[in-house]
Amino acid sequence: MTPEALGPPSERVRLRRGRLRGHYGDATIRHVLETGIIAHVGVSTDEGPIVLPMAYGLETEWLFCHGSVANAMLRSAIDQEVCVTVTLLDGLIVGRSPFHNSATYRSVVIRGIARRVEDPSERLRALQLIADHVVPTWDSGRRPTREELARTLVVAVPLREASAKIREGGPLDEPSDLDGPHWGGTIPLKSTFGGAVPAPDLKAGIAVPPSVAKLGGRTAFGRG
Amino acid sequence: MTPEALGPPSERVRLRRGRLRGHYGDATIRHVLETGIIAHVGVSTDEGPIVLPMAYGLETEWLFCHGSVANAMLRSAIDQEVCVTVTLLDGLIVGRSPFHNSATYRSVVIRGIARRVEDPSERLRALQLIADHVVPTWDSGRRPTREELARTLVVAVPLREASAKIREGGPLDEPSDLDGPHWGGTIPLKSTFGGAVPAPDLKAGIAVPPSVAKLGGRTAFGRG
Repeated sequence: MTPEALGPPSERVRLRRGRLRGHYGDATIRHVLETGIIAHVGVSTDEGPIVLPMAYGLETEWLFCHGSVANAMLRSAIDQEVCVTVTLLDGLIVGRSPFHNSATYRSVVIRGIARRVEDPSERLRALQLIADHVVPTWDSGRRPTREELARTLVVAVPLREASAKIREGGPLDEPSDLDGPHWGGTIPLKSTFGGAVPAPDLKAGIAVPPSVAKLGGRTAFGRG
Repeated sequence: MTPEALGPPSERVRLRRGRLRGHYGDATIRHVLETGIIAHVGVSTDEGPIVLPMAYGLETEWLFCHGSVANAMLRSAIDQEVCVTVTLLDGLIVGRSPFHNSATYRSVVIRGIARRVEDPSERLRALQLIADHVVPTWDSGRRPTREELARTLVVAVPLREASAKIREGGPLDEPSDLDGPHWGGTIPLKSTFGGAVPAPDLKAGIAVPPSVAKLGGRTAFGRG
């Protein structure tokens, strides 16, 4: 993602609260999006907003999601404003006043108009990016068939309007509490991948792909 | 939450795709909501939907969120349709075809009209529920001041319209792939709390509250 791709943050993604926690820089946004696994995608419908967890893939200027062509939520997103939010939870914050209990996290909010991806080569590229963002196995697996492609809806959300918010450090307690009797601090949260578990119906003699095997024991979400 | 509180699922939270993964039962919904730490809250605005991560608290029939009285997103939610989604990521799914790469997860989607909580005792109760849902330290910490309460907006979302979706097990590959040469399976993801880290400015001699200390080494999100 070039800085030009993101451009200056627009007013509607500029953080109104917690200004100091906002990061509009390319590198921070890219880091959070690359490190996350699931996005929460929101669309407005006649019956109110709907927010669903989705896998996603990233290109320089676009974030891709996919689903069945019958996926009502994804269909309703086409040519409409959407919001895509990726949150990495890093820990819990314990305030001297529990009123200030909170969490350490890194998040990115993207707003923009989703478009249906129709070009066959862009569609295939988007599906590869989504699959490889989950686990990079595209090159070691079977390619999608014409039929699979036909029943799949791919949408792209521009990365032009995005902002990141990083909450790290300890509790933001009232100055008057610092001499009080209450404890304050943080509880880190660490996520780790376990070893690969073969599908129950896996044929004997098929080796775990290296890109899968190497995840075992690794921390997720970029935090050791 | 009584079954009556949830009632039968309405048409708009009934899962249209992946029907077999939907759970409308009280216990499953309650489990996911109690186990999650962060919710993604979506509202529709004139400029499109906005989705933000938020801490939350739970009562029998309500989910509570809070923020500054100046929080534009939370203000825009009052008396409007909102969607609150809680997702617990349990692992990654590797398809024989990477087209089927996916994730194991548990999620709950709640839709309803948010109301501003005005009653002082309900507000205090909601703040306790939110604080204790992060870490149960309400009883060992300082209570909020009148000033803190005055600058805080609390909203309640009814739990009446909620559904859960559980994706577990291995990849859902095409039957024709089962005899193929490609690996398929899952990679579990486990999240663990580390030991409590005191705030840099913590006064000497203050013990870690038992409710904080006991989290150290425990798995988060209800998965060992």
